[in-house]
Amino acid sequence: MGINSNRVENLESHETVVRIPPEVMPASPQAADEIHKVCMPPKRTTLQKLKHKLSEVFFPDDPFHKFKDQSSFRKFLLGLQFLFPIFQWGPEYTLALLKADVVSGLTIASLAIPQGISYAKLANLPPIIGLYSSFVPPLIYSILGSSRHLAVGPVSIASLVMGSMLSEEVSFTKEPTLYLKLAFTATFFAGVFQASLGLLRLGFVIDFLSKATLVGFMAGAAVIVSLQQLKGLLGITHFTTKMQFVSVMSSVFQRKDEWSWQTIVLGFSFLLFLLGTRHISIKKPKLFWISAAAPLTSVILSTLLVFLLRTKVPRIAVIGHLPEGLNPLSLNMLYFSGSELGLAIKTGIITGILSLTEGIAVGRTFAGLKNYQVDGNKEMMAIGFMNIAGSCSSCYVTTGSFSRSAVNYNAGAETTVSNVVMSATVLITLLFLMPLFHYTPNFILAAIIITAVVGLIDYQAALRLWKVDKLDFITCLCSFFGVLFISVPLGLAIAVGVSVFKILLHVTRPNTMVLGNISGSEIFQNLDRYQEASRVPSFLILAIESPIYFANSTYLQERMLRWVREEEDRIKANEGSPPLKCVVLDMTAVASIDTSGIETICELRKLLTQKSLQFVLANPTGNVMEKLYKSNVLEPFEFNGLYLSVGEAVKDISSLWKRRP
Amino acid sequence: MGINSNRVENLESHETVVRIPPEVMPASPQAADEIHKVCMPPKRTTLQKLKHKLSEVFFPDDPFHKFKDQSSFRKFLLGLQFLFPIFQWGPEYTLALLKADVVSGLTIASLAIPQGISYAKLANLPPIIGLYSSFVPPLIYSILGSSRHLAVGPVSIASLVMGSMLSEEVSFTKEPTLYLKLAFTATFFAGVFQASLGLLRLGFVIDFLSKATLVGFMAGAAVIVSLQQLKGLLGITHFTTKMQFVSVMSSVFQRKDEWSWQTIVLGFSFLLFLLGTRHISIKKPKLFWISAAAPLTSVILSTLLVFLLRTKVPRIAVIGHLPEGLNPLSLNMLYFSGSELGLAIKTGIITGILSLTEGIAVGRTFAGLKNYQVDGNKEMMAIGFMNIAGSCSSCYVTTGSFSRSAVNYNAGAETTVSNVVMSATVLITLLFLMPLFHYTPNFILAAIIITAVVGLIDYQAALRLWKVDKLDFITCLCSFFGVLFISVPLGLAIAVGVSVFKILLHVTRPNTMVLGNISGSEIFQNLDRYQEASRVPSFLILAIESPIYFANSTYLQERMLRWVREEEDRIKANEGSPPLKCVVLDMTAVASIDTSGIETICELRKLLTQKSLQFVLANPTGNVMEKLYKSNVLEPFEFNGLYLSVGEAVKDISSLWKRRP
Repeated sequence: MGINSNRVENLESHETVVRIPPEVMPASPQAADEIHKVCMPPKRTTLQKLKHKLSEVFFPDDPFHKFKDQSSFRKFLLGLQFLFPIFQWGPEYTLALLKADVVSGLTIASLAIPQGISYAKLANLPPIIGLYSSFVPPLIYSILGSSRHLAVGPVSIASLVMGSMLSEEVSFTKEPTLYLKLAFTATFFAGVFQASLGLLRLGFVIDFLSKATLVGFMAGAAVIVSLQQLKGLLGITHFTTKMQFVSVMSSVFQRKDEWSWQTIVLGFSFLLFLLGTRHISIKKPKLFWISAAAPLTSVILSTLLVFLLRTKVPRIAVIGHLPEGLNPLSLNMLYFSGSELGLAIKTGIITGILSLTEGIAVGRTFAGLKNYQVDGNKEMMAIGFMNIAGSCSSCYVTTGSFSRSAVNYNAGAETTVSNVVMSATVLITLLFLMPLFHYTPNFILAAIIITAVVGLIDYQAALRLWKVDKLDFITCLCSFFGVLFISVPLGLAIAVGVSVFKILLHVTRPNTMVLGNISGSEIFQNLDRYQEASRVPSFLILAIESPIYFANSTYLQERMLRWVREEEDRIKANEGSPPLKCVVLDMTAVASIDTSGIETICELRKLLTQKSLQFVLANPTGNVMEKLYKSNVLEPFEFNGLYLSVGEAVKDISSLWKRRP
Repeated sequence: MGINSNRVENLESHETVVRIPPEVMPASPQAADEIHKVCMPPKRTTLQKLKHKLSEVFFPDDPFHKFKDQSSFRKFLLGLQFLFPIFQWGPEYTLALLKADVVSGLTIASLAIPQGISYAKLANLPPIIGLYSSFVPPLIYSILGSSRHLAVGPVSIASLVMGSMLSEEVSFTKEPTLYLKLAFTATFFAGVFQASLGLLRLGFVIDFLSKATLVGFMAGAAVIVSLQQLKGLLGITHFTTKMQFVSVMSSVFQRKDEWSWQTIVLGFSFLLFLLGTRHISIKKPKLFWISAAAPLTSVILSTLLVFLLRTKVPRIAVIGHLPEGLNPLSLNMLYFSGSELGLAIKTGIITGILSLTEGIAVGRTFAGLKNYQVDGNKEMMAIGFMNIAGSCSSCYVTTGSFSRSAVNYNAGAETTVSNVVMSATVLITLLFLMPLFHYTPNFILAAIIITAVVGLIDYQAALRLWKVDKLDFITCLCSFFGVLFISVPLGLAIAVGVSVFKILLHVTRPNTMVLGNISGSEIFQNLDRYQEASRVPSFLILAIESPIYFANSTYLQERMLRWVREEEDRIKANEGSPPLKCVVLDMTAVASIDTSGIETICELRKLLTQKSLQFVLANPTGNVMEKLYKSNVLEPFEFNGLYLSVGEAVKDISSLWKRRP
């Protein structure tokens, strides 16, 4: 190599001048034709690097930046506000805000009561558990939560997953107590898992459920849940407990004899009514109260109807007796040993992660609309503690519900006080109004569930995925069909697998390209894309758009050699072109390199030197530079084959050729 | 936005002039102060994109490039050479080459015979199977293989893994026939798996076993194998079949009563002799023949010794009777149904992938030394077919051995004919010399195995890993301790998991940084790293060094906002600094984006606009540009917030500010 080893001495003899716009970049005149040296990143010890890395992994948002340079009293106050957001908005709470919160709280309560009962049935739990779960967790959340619009309570996805996972191994009809115990235990573990994710600041775990995965998953879950509601809507009594397309559909058609036309007529009428009100509210968001009031109205109407017709149409299934009174304690029902513990933990983790994803996504959506921040890790702790507390007071998994939060937002909620108002309403219901639900028919619960989950089918998002990113669309399809035809957890696992595979595929087969100079600038760009870009004679400028890892080092070596071969073929075909003399590798986008990658660079250098080609690197990043240096790869380059930019490499090398042809 | 919407019209009024070195980049004079437009990549249909992607995934090296523009006869000839490399070197084969090949072939045969017997014992197979496996597979490889220096036969790692996996479920002492059947079946599946990887061009699968994983894995395997050889060296008869540190060590010390001092003395003497010769050959590579000849010499000497002492020292265990004759057919021993089929397939796949990795790595190493190319996918087919043929002729898994290939190379082998010579020597041994091995003691086999595997412990490579890349070192430790203390396949799985986790960690927490202008150039570099770089007043220039994916989009959004916040704090602290007006995001290293990433860009734009900050993108890659365009994100940018380089963005925006303050 060594062709430009005395570069520094020869600097003054350069004939080229680059003048830089003075008002933008104040350049000293003698610096104009300098070739800049690539330098090493600032020296840091392994410990410092580890600290930096850990702080990036766990504290990317620097949550304590507000605490810097504050008095200790102020620090204490900030700490209190940090742990309990209620201290943030509490002191500024006004009567006007309270009025808004009471209105929105009552509105979501009217939605939460029928939905609570319905979702508990979805999880194969007694309906009363749904009401219990709408009472304690919202109270806890209103103290700890940082979202002002989240309406907390049972949600469809988590209920569905809990129901389908638990009932695969334990029958809720034959062993109702064990089933209930497992549900509370799973809720406990969900809470512990959520809170520890937040405490350990591992919030990024939920990022692995990509948008594409969730779109497919929710649509699949919505379809399977809706189909399962045919049980209630058709009045079938013997029905599969499996959450799977084939067994649900065969249950529906094998039990034709159980279909009850009275239930069908009433059920589908109410379903149409509910879907109609939903449609109106979507078209005119100002009329949100129509869809918000519809479920409670339907429940009251249908209960009245069934009560009046009770002697004439006895075949309509109803909820039956519900106990009056507050949540009983359920600490003694938690289950920490025995053969079913594994099932409870697994169910807890999966429902925990799903409910976190939903809660945080919903919180972020409405925070974005009102311009405040929701801290993911703090939300995880809030949701986690609320589920731990819930599991001790006869509640099952709860989180922020999308549909109720939207109603809450539209009804003008200002703080989490709306959750407190909702809790109070549920409290009154639990204490005094339970007998009224005795004749509430099951079909109305089915209709409410269908209306709620239909909104989860976001076909427009799926279309957008198809348009923008085919692989994302495939992920989406995988999770949709996985959930529909295999099972909920497996479908989810497949979709996460596809997402991770996509990342790995990108790493395994990164983009590489040939760059050309855009005439009249120092910009080098992809020759394929920019027609203004043209090859620099005698140079082949290659760029790699990914870290060089063990998983792609072999590929990259082969691909680089192929680019060189193709360039040589091209030169051979075009007579009179100057021969190839130098290969420049633009490493701007090579964010990182590992030991296999370093070997690839050495190997490439060796193979190109054998072909009498000069091989230089342009703009290695700090990280890469450090590793190249440490592994002694730079010695053959003698720090000379390194340039700060492709432009400088081309300028320097070609001027050296001029002087020593 | 829209601040620079009439950029093109105002171009002539720029006061800035950038002169470009004329001899390097022939620029037209009026192009000098142009702001270049970011353009879309050339339009391609989904099908074209799919085709391109698939060809990059499966044919990165464009294996058929030689076939282009050739006559059909030439194409046929090239095809023949492509499938059977023997046609490539065959016509040019000379007597001189043959002489070299005969010498090296005889040398490796003298090593292959004792190693074959030893490795078969390592796999818990009858010793004769090791010799059979050194006869058929090398013949097949010499026709199909593209490496000229690979010495084919049984190897330690694959033998060890096969032995430990099969004997976990089937006892080779109680059910020797079933065990043998399973070994052949596993070999068959290994071959099928290897050949199909090659045929389907999925060679990159083996890339996922990174160097770091392999260093740890081989060292762990070498330690556990060496410890297991204490059985032979100490003369213990009852020994665990488990490949695991704890059970091996407890076997050694619980069976102290079985230790035989005669075996110990003889065994360790020969071990010292073998290790000594190995040491000499490493110090002086020209004396390679010393270590090459040592095993056979030791076998002969020790056999003689044991034969002479057979009445006096009866406690020394010997190989015993070996059948004379050629490989019997074993097609009828393949096992395609029954409960053990799964075990055979699993063992086949794992030994298959490990032997592929070894074979291809060894082939590439020596090809690199002699400057020829080894095509990974073709090698996979060659090794695969050789194992399929082997499984039908009483051979177990074979591949290219590192130690024997090194001897082959040093002995001057020129083509695969040296493998044929070795096969012929093994043939003669099989036909006539088998009775001579009757008194060969087991301790010498143990000593040969230890000497062979000691070379797999590459502590220097591990030290290099520690120096260069701490995470690679952790991967290495995981696979080392995983293999040593848990089990071979699980240790391997853990190490692959850690490698993949490392990739995901990088994707989840990519580098981000603030760039500054290097005075006197249009280069923008990391402010932390380059002291010459300085902030451009009123600008914050950020760079992301990774694709923006679902797995990092939340992080990146938070991190970008934190950079903005920190910049604002800095400006507040330094009185008199101009306020922040524009954030430039350098997307050079953002090779790809998905739908979550696109949402992040939108969200960032929204949040920054709310802070009255301009937000522009510099140098989006083709891929990213296309997706931004398709998802209609560019509409708010009106194609204006896009620049080809950071330099142009800064130049253009600041000149616009000048004109409209």
